[in-house]
Amino acid sequence: MRVLGVDPGLTRCGVGVVEGVAGRPLTMVGVGVVRTPADADLGHRLVAVEQGIDQWLDEHRPEYVAVERVFSQHNVRTVMGTAQASAVAILCASRRGIPVALHTPSEVKAAVTGSGRADKAQVGAMVTRLLRLASPPKPADAADALALAICHIWRAPAQNRLQQAVTRHASRAPRTQHASKGRTT
Amino acid sequence: MRVLGVDPGLTRCGVGVVEGVAGRPLTMVGVGVVRTPADADLGHRLVAVEQGIDQWLDEHRPEYVAVERVFSQHNVRTVMGTAQASAVAILCASRRGIPVALHTPSEVKAAVTGSGRADKAQVGAMVTRLLRLASPPKPADAADALALAICHIWRAPAQNRLQQAVTRHASRAPRTQHASKGRTT
Repeated sequence: MRVLGVDPGLTRCGVGVVEGVAGRPLTMVGVGVVRTPADADLGHRLVAVEQGIDQWLDEHRPEYVAVERVFSQHNVRTVMGTAQASAVAILCASRRGIPVALHTPSEVKAAVTGSGRADKAQVGAMVTRLLRLASPPKPADAADALALAICHIWRAPAQNRLQQAVTRHASRAPRTQHASKGRTT
Repeated sequence: MRVLGVDPGLTRCGVGVVEGVAGRPLTMVGVGVVRTPADADLGHRLVAVEQGIDQWLDEHRPEYVAVERVFSQHNVRTVMGTAQASAVAILCASRRGIPVALHTPSEVKAAVTGSGRADKAQVGAMVTRLLRLASPPKPADAADALALAICHIWRAPAQNRLQQAVTRHASRAPRTQHASKGRTT
């Protein structure tokens, strides 16, 4: 399974590609940051994010894209830019028919460190260890993108089993509507 | 001047095209709503908004796009979807090199009714009068999109004069950096 993780942002949008399956050592395929100038207007910044994400999709052909789920409660000052950058990333993947999964920051932290309240350094340290890297990826947005991809690979089997169970149930039950409602992958 | 106004939303995205110049009667060229199903996943909804906006841009070839500026303070429950739909609209226009202006809800209300605190009915009534329509456009999102376009046409001359003054000043002043910073049109 090859997954592109995206830590959305207008100034720095972290991107990281990880390949592997749950229960086996994982491999980092690529990591980077899509940057847009803070003094450019919003439209140009969104176009630059789109071009950057499209390049990563072209180059690495991921089977899944995992994007951080943005909450409006946090960081009121920057949340709009984050929401807008995430919309562009989700759009780029969906346009190609690539399934998109949204994971919350605490799901990602819990997946890679065991604690949903881990700090950036701890996430960076675990990403370095799990992908057998020489040093933590910089900036933190790049490490977070890899953590998202790892989280998705590890959570996918459980989600897939759940989905298969729902599908089996739906196919047996007479006319259950919206059996897959709410599914994001 | 032909302007496409966009009242962003995932469930209903209002779109309206108005043609005219400040100080002359305005003409409605088209009005409608881009809808996406509430039970579809976010990626499919954003792709549907993109296709809808692209169709309106193809069909009406506006010179400007005016989008409602989204604030994170309001309507916490729906603000993320609104921000994401607005990102798609801004992206579609910017990709084609069409200038995008963001106007706040109170700027729009003040422009068409004289009061920044006007209610939806008042905005609908004034849009109907200003565009000489037989009845208020429904739903309210469609009327709001037309109000955005009207607001942009009426505010544009002042913004253009300001911009020209800034440009003249910048071209005289030695090495004034970022003279056009913050400009959205």
